[in-house]
Amino acid sequence: MADLASLSRARDLDALARHLEETGTLDIAEDLARLPREEKAVVFRLLPRDRALAVFEALDPVHQQEILEGLRDERFRQLVEDMDPDDRARLLGEVPAKVARRVLAGLSRHEREMTAALLGYPEESAGRLMTPEFVSLRESMTVADALAKVRRAGADAETIYMLPVTDDQRHLRGVVSLRQLVLSPLDARVGDLMVRDVVAVHATDDQEVAARLMQEADLLALPVLDSEERLVGVITVDDAMQILEDEETEDRALAAATQPLGRPYLSASALRVARSRATWLLILIVAATLTVNVLQYFEDELATVVRLALFIPLLIDTGGNAGSQAATVVIRAMAVGEVRFADLPRVLGREAQVGVLLGLMLGLVAFGPVAVFFDPRLAVVVSVSLVTICTWATFAGAVLPLLARRVGIDPAVVSAPLITTLVDATGLVIYFLIARAVLEI
Amino acid sequence: MADLASLSRARDLDALARHLEETGTLDIAEDLARLPREEKAVVFRLLPRDRALAVFEALDPVHQQEILEGLRDERFRQLVEDMDPDDRARLLGEVPAKVARRVLAGLSRHEREMTAALLGYPEESAGRLMTPEFVSLRESMTVADALAKVRRAGADAETIYMLPVTDDQRHLRGVVSLRQLVLSPLDARVGDLMVRDVVAVHATDDQEVAARLMQEADLLALPVLDSEERLVGVITVDDAMQILEDEETEDRALAAATQPLGRPYLSASALRVARSRATWLLILIVAATLTVNVLQYFEDELATVVRLALFIPLLIDTGGNAGSQAATVVIRAMAVGEVRFADLPRVLGREAQVGVLLGLMLGLVAFGPVAVFFDPRLAVVVSVSLVTICTWATFAGAVLPLLARRVGIDPAVVSAPLITTLVDATGLVIYFLIARAVLEI
Repeated sequence: MADLASLSRARDLDALARHLEETGTLDIAEDLARLPREEKAVVFRLLPRDRALAVFEALDPVHQQEILEGLRDERFRQLVEDMDPDDRARLLGEVPAKVARRVLAGLSRHEREMTAALLGYPEESAGRLMTPEFVSLRESMTVADALAKVRRAGADAETIYMLPVTDDQRHLRGVVSLRQLVLSPLDARVGDLMVRDVVAVHATDDQEVAARLMQEADLLALPVLDSEERLVGVITVDDAMQILEDEETEDRALAAATQPLGRPYLSASALRVARSRATWLLILIVAATLTVNVLQYFEDELATVVRLALFIPLLIDTGGNAGSQAATVVIRAMAVGEVRFADLPRVLGREAQVGVLLGLMLGLVAFGPVAVFFDPRLAVVVSVSLVTICTWATFAGAVLPLLARRVGIDPAVVSAPLITTLVDATGLVIYFLIARAVLEI
Repeated sequence: MADLASLSRARDLDALARHLEETGTLDIAEDLARLPREEKAVVFRLLPRDRALAVFEALDPVHQQEILEGLRDERFRQLVEDMDPDDRARLLGEVPAKVARRVLAGLSRHEREMTAALLGYPEESAGRLMTPEFVSLRESMTVADALAKVRRAGADAETIYMLPVTDDQRHLRGVVSLRQLVLSPLDARVGDLMVRDVVAVHATDDQEVAARLMQEADLLALPVLDSEERLVGVITVDDAMQILEDEETEDRALAAATQPLGRPYLSASALRVARSRATWLLILIVAATLTVNVLQYFEDELATVVRLALFIPLLIDTGGNAGSQAATVVIRAMAVGEVRFADLPRVLGREAQVGVLLGLMLGLVAFGPVAVFFDPRLAVVVSVSLVTICTWATFAGAVLPLLARRVGIDPAVVSAPLITTLVDATGLVIYFLIARAVLEI
């Protein structure tokens, strides 16, 4: 089986061109991303212009940059000019200044202005994500007028499926879908067909908020307004899906105490990967010195009953697990909008019950084996500790993300690893206090 | 400020109706989901028919069921008949049999047949997600013919933006977008306009695979084929986004060792929440008994140098954190298709380097404080253990998910908590072997 990588290594350009002809756009993009840097442009140059654009747009900015660097001026200019303004702004936001200047230099004045306008909005804002190329209608138009305008102006627009309706001052009055236009009589008025209950965002709003809104409201495109409520662009659903995927990746990274890599895993160097994890590992190991202090405080008890040490990992693992379960579920419920801060009392009550139920279950399960293999009094200590630690960890895991959001910290930051470390120290205190009382040491 | 909950409690129906008129569909759906069960139907009955449908479709199946149970027959029948077949199939898949029978009984024959057909496909398959209501074209049609057919048949279709082109045997020949039709001359032939390089799935394929494909290829609709390659439905992008959100919620739940709740957090009982977490907590506590065995084996060393116990939580927390960092990043990279099993050697090499780098950093940081506050030989033990445990945990965290996928286990299952527990026991062995060698005990 010939594949892109081996054909490229063999420099068999004819076979490569044939292979590219027979392969789907998405598959080419995926294979291209895996090629070594210097071979990317070689393969890419074999693609005809329209396919090249499709493949290019399916790539991550990191890989786009590697290809751009290998292209000659004419091809470079063509490719950049053919991109949608929002995709171009995304690329520019992520490449070094040197490449960015070359990209901007290759644009016609009109395209350059549109791109620069998008770059004027803050990073991760809806303004960066929107396209300024849309077709807007007027209320007074008939369906026939509207369809004529779509035919005239639609070729350049990124979407024509959602058509915003504006007044003379570009204020948004409503939206009408291409579907409604096509299914309505030609003499119907746009003002009568349009939906006035429009969901829209401001250009400075967060991208994730815009994307979640589109997901909830099942929108194919979302109008974006400036600070004076004038229509400045629309966000299309494909870009919203990309944002949701990126945000998920970012949240997951945070939930496992790493910073997002900001580029595909395999194209990041070991040093970059290590850097993305180092800060959190350091913070967590400093936080974990709390456990050393707690144990030092109880060193006499430990020296008297060495066997107490045997259950330390089991107890703190269980506390950590119970805490991350609660934290993850609550963080996710907040992310998709099921839980708000006002629900804190309900969440508290719920998780306290859940914690007790789980703790009792674990305490009961642990009692027998510890009593048989060690001794019954130690079994009492371990079981009672499990019930208490499990209840406390569940409770803390659920409450901390809600409190974090309240004071303006991303809840993903206080998720599993941080909660585990905090619960560990308190869990050890609980364990040794119970041991002191029961074992009378 | 009047809100839905207080107006509903006050049973002020006039004020309620006014409030509903002034509030957006999405906001009503969100507020409705938070109302107590018995009040949901009361409020819902005040909505006019078309808004009621929009609100109803924005709700989760759990809440849809609660509303349905409170409606009289005529309103019930109307609502169910107005739903899209795929949304109805989703509702039916999640409500008790009693409600499901009533839903099916309320349908016209045509709608019932369409719904039953969807229910014939396996759960979580693309067949369950697709809509059988689409408009298909023929290659021989002109744009004028095609637009006429869309006008005739489009009102019932869930989407008309992506129009599949089929032959006499309903085999998929290509797709054409409504955009292309609208922007092309009326006498152009569909066969010349359509794209032949079509991305499609089979009805028995997994929903998540279909949804990710739509996300990667930026599709608004995806054709679904039966086992004989005939077109049986299309999946629309709004349903795909819903699936991706559900899958994310499920993966996150698994990554924190809980089973997915299968319903919104606040509407699940404490018992249900506890059940979703109990199995994994039990599995993990049984796995954690390994740590007890390891420590028991080294009990003499512990008794001789009690201080060794002080660093147990810090070491196993760090190992757990390093392991989950690697596991989470690799699992995510696999989920979005950046990493495959064939990349195993590259991932291995990368993570081994990352592990050593991180381990050296932590070892260096820990050496000073332990040497000063305890003693230099103990500092050597702790530092060398940190380097070794960190390297090992990073390596294991990256490799286990890839191996799991290879043998057909969902990588999310072997993620953070399980890896943490496994790394804990091996980490303790490493620690005590190093302590034995350095401290000569």
